[in-house]
Amino acid sequence: MIELDFKKTDGLIPAIAQDFDTGEVLMMAFINEESWKLTLETGVVHYWSRSRNKLWKKGESSGNIQEVKEIRVDCDDDCVLLKIRQVGDAACHTGFRSCFYRKVKDGALVTEGEKVFDPEDVYGAKG
Amino acid sequence: MIELDFKKTDGLIPAIAQDFDTGEVLMMAFINEESWKLTLETGVVHYWSRSRNKLWKKGESSGNIQEVKEIRVDCDDDCVLLKIRQVGDAACHTGFRSCFYRKVKDGALVTEGEKVFDPEDVYGAKG
Repeated sequence: MIELDFKKTDGLIPAIAQDFDTGEVLMMAFINEESWKLTLETGVVHYWSRSRNKLWKKGESSGNIQEVKEIRVDCDDDCVLLKIRQVGDAACHTGFRSCFYRKVKDGALVTEGEKVFDPEDVYGAKG
Repeated sequence: MIELDFKKTDGLIPAIAQDFDTGEVLMMAFINEESWKLTLETGVVHYWSRSRNKLWKKGESSGNIQEVKEIRVDCDDDCVLLKIRQVGDAACHTGFRSCFYRKVKDGALVTEGEKVFDPEDVYGAKG
């Protein structure tokens, strides 16, 4: 297996998901060694959820999985770039295509992104 | 100032640098609150160097600074996407245009990237 440097950040490395066709950066999340192994083996992106403290197969609840088209590793072996095909067309849990749907403008954040789904339809109403 | 969530990772947030024109992901490094403030104020990217444990104005020794064209913030306020113009055309200290110059192929890493400069010419011969 290709070895990454999991020592620096408590076993977690940032992984950037980029749309393979358009080049749009869709999200960033962390991976641990197990996520990395599973992503390589299955061809489907697995992250590590810091909020839930568990392995996270992206799309496990929404069905919006990420199919790996190409993987690149950075010069220090401590970051990976996942070029993917986003099933369902939205990577963000808010329903936007990309998690980076807000832009800095005149010192504030303005929304500028494509909303693909309503989170309540996918994850159920908030309690 | 736009507030980011610097609590999660010991005050450091991943920042992704993407070529504003081509969409190529050039590098990932971390920012702290001071880097973020300086990047917003100056329009030139400042990171935090974990290896040197100090503020790092990208290009301070090579001259290859990064001019901010657009900044996007992710849904959780814990990652930023910096769309930039890379002066000198190379973001990686190895002389490659992008730090992600190696690609996973048949279970190994193969180099596939454009080398723009020889690091010895820019940083001096290795001691």
